[in-house]
Amino acid sequence: MKMAITGGGGFLGSRLARALLADSRVERLVLADLAPAQSPVDDPRLALLTTDLSEAGAAESIVEGADVIFHLAAILSGQAEAEFDLGMRVNLDGTRRLLEAARAGGRRPRFVFASSLAVFGAPLPPVVTDDTAARPQSSYGAEKAMGELLAAEFSRRGFVDSRILRLPTVCVRPGRPNAAASSFVSGIIREPLHGEKAVCPVGPELALWLSSPRSVVANLVHGASLSAEALGADRTINLPGITVTVGEMIASLARVAGREAPARIEFSGDPAVRRIVSSWPSRFDVRRALALGFSGDLEFEALIREFLADEAAEKGVSQGSR
Amino acid sequence: MKMAITGGGGFLGSRLARALLADSRVERLVLADLAPAQSPVDDPRLALLTTDLSEAGAAESIVEGADVIFHLAAILSGQAEAEFDLGMRVNLDGTRRLLEAARAGGRRPRFVFASSLAVFGAPLPPVVTDDTAARPQSSYGAEKAMGELLAAEFSRRGFVDSRILRLPTVCVRPGRPNAAASSFVSGIIREPLHGEKAVCPVGPELALWLSSPRSVVANLVHGASLSAEALGADRTINLPGITVTVGEMIASLARVAGREAPARIEFSGDPAVRRIVSSWPSRFDVRRALALGFSGDLEFEALIREFLADEAAEKGVSQGSR
Repeated sequence: MKMAITGGGGFLGSRLARALLADSRVERLVLADLAPAQSPVDDPRLALLTTDLSEAGAAESIVEGADVIFHLAAILSGQAEAEFDLGMRVNLDGTRRLLEAARAGGRRPRFVFASSLAVFGAPLPPVVTDDTAARPQSSYGAEKAMGELLAAEFSRRGFVDSRILRLPTVCVRPGRPNAAASSFVSGIIREPLHGEKAVCPVGPELALWLSSPRSVVANLVHGASLSAEALGADRTINLPGITVTVGEMIASLARVAGREAPARIEFSGDPAVRRIVSSWPSRFDVRRALALGFSGDLEFEALIREFLADEAAEKGVSQGSR
Repeated sequence: MKMAITGGGGFLGSRLARALLADSRVERLVLADLAPAQSPVDDPRLALLTTDLSEAGAAESIVEGADVIFHLAAILSGQAEAEFDLGMRVNLDGTRRLLEAARAGGRRPRFVFASSLAVFGAPLPPVVTDDTAARPQSSYGAEKAMGELLAAEFSRRGFVDSRILRLPTVCVRPGRPNAAASSFVSGIIREPLHGEKAVCPVGPELALWLSSPRSVVANLVHGASLSAEALGADRTINLPGITVTVGEMIASLARVAGREAPARIEFSGDPAVRRIVSSWPSRFDVRRALALGFSGDLEFEALIREFLADEAAEKGVSQGSR
């Protein structure tokens, strides 16, 4: 099997690459990214491709020969709101270019599209289901919702075989803050754990729908593995997550890391971030996803402990390789 | 007020033009169409524009100076299914070009987008509401659903002021069969009334969601007249219609035109048409539309009588003008 990941230089892309390469049936894995990607693991099956999806021929070179394409590349929510045309070009046109290239290749590859809970916006029912209308309240959400329709239609026409997975907000992300409006969701846990200050732009009552990086990576791999028959006609799936308020997250942080950790969080309202993040739903009925074998997390403290364990393992790897 | 209609040479565009010109506040009305449009009425405020939305500069010339834009132009459902790339270019890219041109104009015009019940597809709830997810099962439906998201997002960003109206199947259309999968819905009434044979590609049990041309035109005019405040944040509205089966339509035809009329209908299954048309919903909860002042029809026989009255009036006009 030959696979490709767009946004392959990102955190999820790298983790996904490592998970995929654990499968000996994977013969080749292309990690495509705008910025030069670092090899997440030393493996001869891995090919790094520095390319811009908006340039002619880029999409074709990414999908060439691929049996499975994971499309993770995106301009994140905060930046897409600030730079409308850039978001449209990458998030909508880039997705379309990739789908068109896959169609032209004629191999009908599996197309795993990383969509987002951001396709939803007010007015929302108390619990979001697969039948809830996508009424995005952000440019990122609108672009993802259009990308979903494109991927579903290209699949219905038989050009690709799509699996459209709506990711919860991923927490705890490693590294530094990013251009997502939800960047703080990881920041208020990660920075205090590192003894650093963090700013929380929303109040403690805000409820979020979260997934650990491990669950998201496992669900992307699982989404690619499902047969078309198992999925049926409706290819858009809300992935499992957990509902947790910012206040509950901070209480968990105190239990894991002691009372001094939450003291490093400063609450400082940011209306732009609050408007986007509070438009996203926090409660989902994911019975269909669970029946299809997608998995979720059980409680938020485990997400913090996973982050610490992953960080320790990464340090071990990087020290070991020196 | 200056207005423009794309698809202005079509049947709905012409009827809409006449309705709009009855308002003395309309100073100028541009009827844009791919084919040279016939002037639906002799009026100095009317400008006919033969133009192709996919050509550079076309969208700009259509929206120039307009306070209200009615976007009716589309590749219809049967043709969009048969010619995928053409449908994408006109129904998705054309809508985007028009929105971009309106944005560049900087006047924030009202943008009335004629969408369709075709954005919906199985699995469907027993009654479709404004909260029902759009899961199109046709290329036309997918393109309209993406157009809706574009129009909603451009409105949310303040580039235009959108009103996205999902039209029921329009019946009884005058003229000849067209490239819509639903063309037969008018054909099985219109052709027998004219003493001609008609082919019905679906069974009598199929339920449809219909609106008269008069109601659709009145609702397009009403949609343009509503204030942004009255509409609120959600700009996508399922227009009122009536639920009727093909069998009930034929029974109505017999009551209006006698038993010999239905005898001119030949049932001859067409799986391609059946697949598309039966994926559309036939029952809607339109309380929001009614509360906003949109109007509907009461029963199907009235649609037949309206068609006959409109046809008689058109003949009178065209005879009088000779």
